[in-house]
Amino acid sequence: MAETDQAPPQSDQLAAMNLTDAVEKHAFSDRVLIRSIVGRPDGGAGLSGQKVRAGGWVKTGREQGKGTFAFLELNDGSCPANLQVIVDAGVAVLSKLVATGTCVVVDGILKVPPEGTRQKIELRVEKVVSVGEVDPAKYPIPKTKLTLEFLRDHLHLRSRTNTIAALARIRNALAFATHSFFQEHNFLYVHTPIITTSDCEGAGEMFQVTTLISESEKLEKELIKSPPPSEADIEAARQVVSERGEAVKQLKAAKASKSDITASVAELNKAKENLSKLEERSKLKPGIPKKDGKIDYTQDFFARQAFLTVSGQLQVETYACAVSNVYTFGPTFRAEQSHTSRHLAEFWMVEPEIAFADLQDDMKCAEAYVKYMCNWLLDKCLDDMEFMAKSYDKGCIDRLKMVASTPFVRITYTEAVELLEEAVKGGKKFENEVKWGIDLASEHERFLTEVKFQKPVIVYNYPKGIKAFYMRLNDDMKTVAAMDVLVPKVGELIGGSQREERYDVIRERISEMGLPLEPYEWYLDLRRFGTVKHCGFGLGFERMILFATGIDNIRDVIPFPRYPGRADL
Amino acid sequence: MAETDQAPPQSDQLAAMNLTDAVEKHAFSDRVLIRSIVGRPDGGAGLSGQKVRAGGWVKTGREQGKGTFAFLELNDGSCPANLQVIVDAGVAVLSKLVATGTCVVVDGILKVPPEGTRQKIELRVEKVVSVGEVDPAKYPIPKTKLTLEFLRDHLHLRSRTNTIAALARIRNALAFATHSFFQEHNFLYVHTPIITTSDCEGAGEMFQVTTLISESEKLEKELIKSPPPSEADIEAARQVVSERGEAVKQLKAAKASKSDITASVAELNKAKENLSKLEERSKLKPGIPKKDGKIDYTQDFFARQAFLTVSGQLQVETYACAVSNVYTFGPTFRAEQSHTSRHLAEFWMVEPEIAFADLQDDMKCAEAYVKYMCNWLLDKCLDDMEFMAKSYDKGCIDRLKMVASTPFVRITYTEAVELLEEAVKGGKKFENEVKWGIDLASEHERFLTEVKFQKPVIVYNYPKGIKAFYMRLNDDMKTVAAMDVLVPKVGELIGGSQREERYDVIRERISEMGLPLEPYEWYLDLRRFGTVKHCGFGLGFERMILFATGIDNIRDVIPFPRYPGRADL
Repeated sequence: MAETDQAPPQSDQLAAMNLTDAVEKHAFSDRVLIRSIVGRPDGGAGLSGQKVRAGGWVKTGREQGKGTFAFLELNDGSCPANLQVIVDAGVAVLSKLVATGTCVVVDGILKVPPEGTRQKIELRVEKVVSVGEVDPAKYPIPKTKLTLEFLRDHLHLRSRTNTIAALARIRNALAFATHSFFQEHNFLYVHTPIITTSDCEGAGEMFQVTTLISESEKLEKELIKSPPPSEADIEAARQVVSERGEAVKQLKAAKASKSDITASVAELNKAKENLSKLEERSKLKPGIPKKDGKIDYTQDFFARQAFLTVSGQLQVETYACAVSNVYTFGPTFRAEQSHTSRHLAEFWMVEPEIAFADLQDDMKCAEAYVKYMCNWLLDKCLDDMEFMAKSYDKGCIDRLKMVASTPFVRITYTEAVELLEEAVKGGKKFENEVKWGIDLASEHERFLTEVKFQKPVIVYNYPKGIKAFYMRLNDDMKTVAAMDVLVPKVGELIGGSQREERYDVIRERISEMGLPLEPYEWYLDLRRFGTVKHCGFGLGFERMILFATGIDNIRDVIPFPRYPGRADL
Repeated sequence: MAETDQAPPQSDQLAAMNLTDAVEKHAFSDRVLIRSIVGRPDGGAGLSGQKVRAGGWVKTGREQGKGTFAFLELNDGSCPANLQVIVDAGVAVLSKLVATGTCVVVDGILKVPPEGTRQKIELRVEKVVSVGEVDPAKYPIPKTKLTLEFLRDHLHLRSRTNTIAALARIRNALAFATHSFFQEHNFLYVHTPIITTSDCEGAGEMFQVTTLISESEKLEKELIKSPPPSEADIEAARQVVSERGEAVKQLKAAKASKSDITASVAELNKAKENLSKLEERSKLKPGIPKKDGKIDYTQDFFARQAFLTVSGQLQVETYACAVSNVYTFGPTFRAEQSHTSRHLAEFWMVEPEIAFADLQDDMKCAEAYVKYMCNWLLDKCLDDMEFMAKSYDKGCIDRLKMVASTPFVRITYTEAVELLEEAVKGGKKFENEVKWGIDLASEHERFLTEVKFQKPVIVYNYPKGIKAFYMRLNDDMKTVAAMDVLVPKVGELIGGSQREERYDVIRERISEMGLPLEPYEWYLDLRRFGTVKHCGFGLGFERMILFATGIDNIRDVIPFPRYPGRADL
């Protein structure tokens, strides 16, 4: 994790703004963002002579001139570049300022440094406003060179490193680019449910959401505190009821006074009530409630089994079939025991859905969206991208430029298989056999996009046997209108399809795949009533970040990674 | 749910655009958005004579002129207004087009209708491209007047109604306004985790996330298919081991050949292996794995108990204390048995966190954010807001204007209590007693904002006893730097605070509240190392929609509401 150079500034906005405006505009705070100074085209030189308050964390600090002053490289996360700060010994105790990770807020005057230094501007401190100290001996991440793997054990501090901070800015940029793209194209952002009772892809890979365990533990504790009644307790209560009943009978037989009888009946009722309470309590059993040997989900929070969503697609289709163009952007979950660098148990997905549109439109949208994101990063995050290029993946900026400017190749699945077979004939070795009907493996996808075409490739019209029931059956009756977008570095980035809008055909497909119809009745209603041609796709958001940055492990591009055995914080 | 009038158009963008550009720009589809026609300042009149393809769902349709032509009010969700479409009997079978909910795609020519009609433009159909029919006898929502409560039982179709579609557009607008506001102010969007192991507000109200139940069910099935070995099976296997052991011994004693001994040892090892497999399998028990009488969470997916998040605040603070200004916008969860119109089990929260900022900055940010959203709706969603005003809440537009233009009142909690006590003296009756130290009830909050001030009110500096441990202790040692933003119609819209940044003080506060320190060690690290003054707040996104639209039940402003007993789709 090398310290970054002063990154070349990108924002023309900043240049047009004087510093007072920048303070006003950019933060609900009395300090100026460091980006407002060093992020200018002139590196901040034009601000020389201005008084400012700055705050940030010390990246590197050192005492100089026999302890007469200190240099601090200050970073506040607003950009990769640091502000160079100079503090005289007369102003503060220098030893408290120089440790990496120290938080300082300072007032001072911006000055152009002497010739021959890298910085275009530096801050001469007049007053140290506040210090958040660091004891370097105890600081878990004191060094500047730490492996990404090591940092995964310190999730709460790793955003203080250059790499994770740059990834946070890139992730933020891609998220806002996503919203901007779909808003510009009149798509409505729809929040599909996180907790779902539609178990569409097999419960095996889904996380269950429940209150049954905590409720049963609560009950267990309660029963220990006041144990359920014994058989004897209940027998005794039954005895009381029968005695009281006898008493009433006798009073009635003896034609006792009305008030005596009423009182006696009241006692009987009290005894009956007590008995039924005891009987009710005696049924309470510790453990998860069961009925006929199975867990009784009617007693769970949602009165049925509930899971974390694996995709918002089916639900968002209900909106597409009403308001035309929609998209989701939210967390999705897989309870898979995958320990690879490409899988997370919790990850974010972008899923647009377009009405009155077919597979060709779907591909057009996917290509435009990916290009838009690439251009967005080149426009707004070039300093961070330059850091990634320098530190992790030399080619990442060129890759963005190439994808942004090159028309995506489009080939059918059948053509793709033919190309792969040709390659095999030419001596290319794959681990997985190539023949029509297989699901393309990652090695095949990467061969197509990285070797064969060296640009993004959209493969479409896949065999129906390897694709989901909701994908539209083509006229050949063998393939469905599905498409995958393959890009260099990660392979499959997007998977989508035109949806089967014909009621009879989709019913048939559900049965053909051995799925029950009942859970899909609501989904079938969309075809029963006012059905519409429509299509959509899903983009794994973390995959997009891997593609953009060249980072290898998906656990490093999401702030709080969840995977088997780990869910820190 | 009254049908909407042709809403007055808002978008200047549309006016500047010719129709071809609009088609190009607005959708990945060959039809033009209805908003691109009727959403213009001239209601579309200027487009007369142009050929277009339009698609949408029939809101109301009727045959006229003794069946010689049909009027269709077509809506595609791009705006509340419909496009009037006229089809001659010669062009299509009219009876198939007129049912509410029918999906039609048509080619035709835009024409200015005869004088005296409401519409500024209508579409004369030349060709019906496709029809998605509806059988009105079977369509679950055929009528235009349906209660919101009824629609909750038809989540998958309710977005086809005017109200739910308008709410979808308003929700979308507020979501994008949120991102735009924070991006403009240099906040980074951070995805905090949905699945969390930080049980910060008491597990009682949290949903548990687990694979233990499905894993134990899998095991149960497996054990039924091939039952675990009996004691006799194991005894028999033990017997084989001892026989084989004996055989080896004898061979050795008899100084048999090396190859004979080796073969015999191999057999012994095989027997031993078989025994240990059986012993292992005999330990398998159906049911959730336990250890020392408690559930053994080391066998759960994350190797510990995991929950759905109730707030991303603590986690996002790790980013604020590294990159300064951040926000989250994501789903949060409460497993409360609340059957009110104000609570959901799954809802969306916006949580900004600002470094180098105090409670005053926090209030400034909250006020600016709320005003920004109000202005955004007035600018970009006025047609939908007019529909809400007409159908649900006459005052909703005036309320937005008032909040956007009025400085928020700021009073301390102590002043608020004094005002409430004064009101009580003046004869005002509250259900909950008013005295210093209470948590303000909703009736108190609404009195302050709706009756006393009739504008938004920020109450700050609450008694520490009723607030969370992480809120900064004021110098009076009695109150903390917390603030709530109260608005007419919903009461509390935002809750926030300056965070306690002093290590010793926050440690003390955790202990004082009887909480264990260990789970907060990571949180304490933020104060141990390079601590920074910071603050933040949370806004319940659905509350904001209730406030804006005047809708009464929170279940109607989220696409897929989750509450006790219900999680449809």
